[in-house]
Amino acid sequence: MHNELSLILSGISQIIPLEDLEKKLKSGRKLTIKLGMDPTSPDLHLGHAVVLSKLKQFQDLGHNVIFLIGDFTARIGDPSGRSKTRPPLSIEQINHNMKSYFQQVGTILDVNKTTIAYNSEFLGKLNASDFLLLCGKVTVSRILERDDFQKRMATQEPIGFHELLYPLMQGYDSVALQADVELGGTDQTFNLLMGRTLQEHYNQEPQVIITMPLLEGLDGVHKMSKSLGNAIGLTEPANEAFGKLMSISDSLMWRYMKLLLNVSDQQIAHEQQAVSNGTVHPMELKKKMAQAIIAKFWSVPEADQALAYFEAVFQQKDYSKADIITLPDDCPNPIWIVDLLRILDSIPTSSEAKRLIQAGAVQLNGIPVATFNAQVHWQPGMIIKVGKHKIYRIQ
Amino acid sequence: MHNELSLILSGISQIIPLEDLEKKLKSGRKLTIKLGMDPTSPDLHLGHAVVLSKLKQFQDLGHNVIFLIGDFTARIGDPSGRSKTRPPLSIEQINHNMKSYFQQVGTILDVNKTTIAYNSEFLGKLNASDFLLLCGKVTVSRILERDDFQKRMATQEPIGFHELLYPLMQGYDSVALQADVELGGTDQTFNLLMGRTLQEHYNQEPQVIITMPLLEGLDGVHKMSKSLGNAIGLTEPANEAFGKLMSISDSLMWRYMKLLLNVSDQQIAHEQQAVSNGTVHPMELKKKMAQAIIAKFWSVPEADQALAYFEAVFQQKDYSKADIITLPDDCPNPIWIVDLLRILDSIPTSSEAKRLIQAGAVQLNGIPVATFNAQVHWQPGMIIKVGKHKIYRIQ
Repeated sequence: MHNELSLILSGISQIIPLEDLEKKLKSGRKLTIKLGMDPTSPDLHLGHAVVLSKLKQFQDLGHNVIFLIGDFTARIGDPSGRSKTRPPLSIEQINHNMKSYFQQVGTILDVNKTTIAYNSEFLGKLNASDFLLLCGKVTVSRILERDDFQKRMATQEPIGFHELLYPLMQGYDSVALQADVELGGTDQTFNLLMGRTLQEHYNQEPQVIITMPLLEGLDGVHKMSKSLGNAIGLTEPANEAFGKLMSISDSLMWRYMKLLLNVSDQQIAHEQQAVSNGTVHPMELKKKMAQAIIAKFWSVPEADQALAYFEAVFQQKDYSKADIITLPDDCPNPIWIVDLLRILDSIPTSSEAKRLIQAGAVQLNGIPVATFNAQVHWQPGMIIKVGKHKIYRIQ
Repeated sequence: MHNELSLILSGISQIIPLEDLEKKLKSGRKLTIKLGMDPTSPDLHLGHAVVLSKLKQFQDLGHNVIFLIGDFTARIGDPSGRSKTRPPLSIEQINHNMKSYFQQVGTILDVNKTTIAYNSEFLGKLNASDFLLLCGKVTVSRILERDDFQKRMATQEPIGFHELLYPLMQGYDSVALQADVELGGTDQTFNLLMGRTLQEHYNQEPQVIITMPLLEGLDGVHKMSKSLGNAIGLTEPANEAFGKLMSISDSLMWRYMKLLLNVSDQQIAHEQQAVSNGTVHPMELKKKMAQAIIAKFWSVPEADQALAYFEAVFQQKDYSKADIITLPDDCPNPIWIVDLLRILDSIPTSSEAKRLIQAGAVQLNGIPVATFNAQVHWQPGMIIKVGKHKIYRIQ
């Protein structure tokens, strides 16, 4: 039991309250561990991997883990239409995102031992009276305590009234699932505590909440997020993910080692010592980290291959190993640089292309493209480098 | 049309907005006029009569009046259990209160031309998604603008989260009924405006709201309310109601004339002049007022009889006209004064009995009862006076 507890506590941000977890573990019961996710985007990234890894630990310890899909609220989206981050999703979109989730989650969890639940199954069944009864369990000031509500009220940014209901519904999920433990990022603390409150009102043993640190994105500043362009997606090709991992700062490397690889503080201090002694080069350490992360969340063969690719192409500049791109038969020659980048599928938008070109980060055979309007005369064997981590060779 | 408008505007507190009412009246349509009431108590009083009389005016003008019973929220009550004023009511209690309402409302409205609606019919059918969509129509700050929410937040008095939903539900009632006009007391202004807002969101022509002044109770200070003990119930015996009306202050008399009898400001000024000239005695005017109110909300014969009773018993002290009480065969003699008052059914509680006795307001054959512990030796013909308005004669 002691080992179990220390394993669970490793790498977490906060546990509320510790004694409840000890009691629950002591009971010897198979605990129900809940992790909820909104199916608003089809892509999971390494930021999600932090909390999913914690869920996997519980799974490995023999507990019942529930991956809860918040499809109910996703279908409704933001009824006020004010928020761009919450468009209402169709059932088709949700199902598509879901399928994609399972594949991605399958790289971390044992899907056969994972219970998948949809909150539409219970929230969808509530009628207006049930809803009022649920709302009556808490006070207005309790709801408005939530940090982001406070901030938005202080800056007079409008809050849709329905938004106040979301924490209650998320809390009700814990009641419906009779969760023993709920996991989430530190930004979810308020909502997770609501689950505790509501479970008590519904005469259940309140859940223990465990929050995980939020993983910074490649920029080392903001929370990893696809929309901020600082994410490494779990379905990205291993070579690309490896290259991105190699681009992070040394200080962020320690953080990724700790949060994604569960390296102990002691071990990290030891490695830091070695780096400052000069006995270990940080680049070597970073390659080890990248390899270990790819091995853990992709696969060992992919990790080995990605390491070899990185060393050959980026370190030894052996462009014969670069990704080979076959241009379509009717590809114009010359071609506008932005159209070429679009064919390579290496940039999300033309404004991103513009930014990269202006930064001199798009190179043809080692020469930066000078202008956004450039027409490119391409020929087989040409090497196109986009940003720090993508190198293509035209067939 | 002009007469119709000026009739509607007489005696009101506020109309929002006037031009919408003019437009609606000009259309020549039969308008839908809504008045909502909570079935929390079986007793209506003269305070309710103010707004019911306005509803009656619309009815007389040929419009469709809807008396909406808020049975949905009454069934739920206060889910937090904190509020004593909102206990959850059983369907039986609600039905009982309802039946009693209809009888009472029937003394003012033409029941055959009145549509009775229950908001459980539409609110009860909303599911959780409908509810979220409804909530998404407004912002949190809009809801918290309500005066009593502001006050309670300022004094840190807890507000149940469900309470925020009530204005939305009341507003949704107007959507479901497609109300053209909603009536209410001035304390309902916020909720009535919510109906306008929501109707616009549901693509309806927004309702006009008309608020009526709140009638002060017998104390002349607080809003008339059964629980404050300052009310005249519509089902009270006419003699008692008459006596209570005779007990109000002269200044309150002008207010009752205006709000309950629709006497014009001009006419009131004229009467006030006559009183200060000494050409009219205020007691005579008050008797006229009481008679007119009983005639309007009870009946003309009851009004005539109550006037005669008042003059005989209270003015000429002819106790042969007092209410004759037959004591039960096994009535002890002597009897504790409080038990006697209980048999007369003239006081609500023993603490009220104590208060009246201490004030010297309980008299036996003209002699005040000296102490709360008094044992009364009763005999046939004994006159018992309780407070200012109740006189009984033992058979």
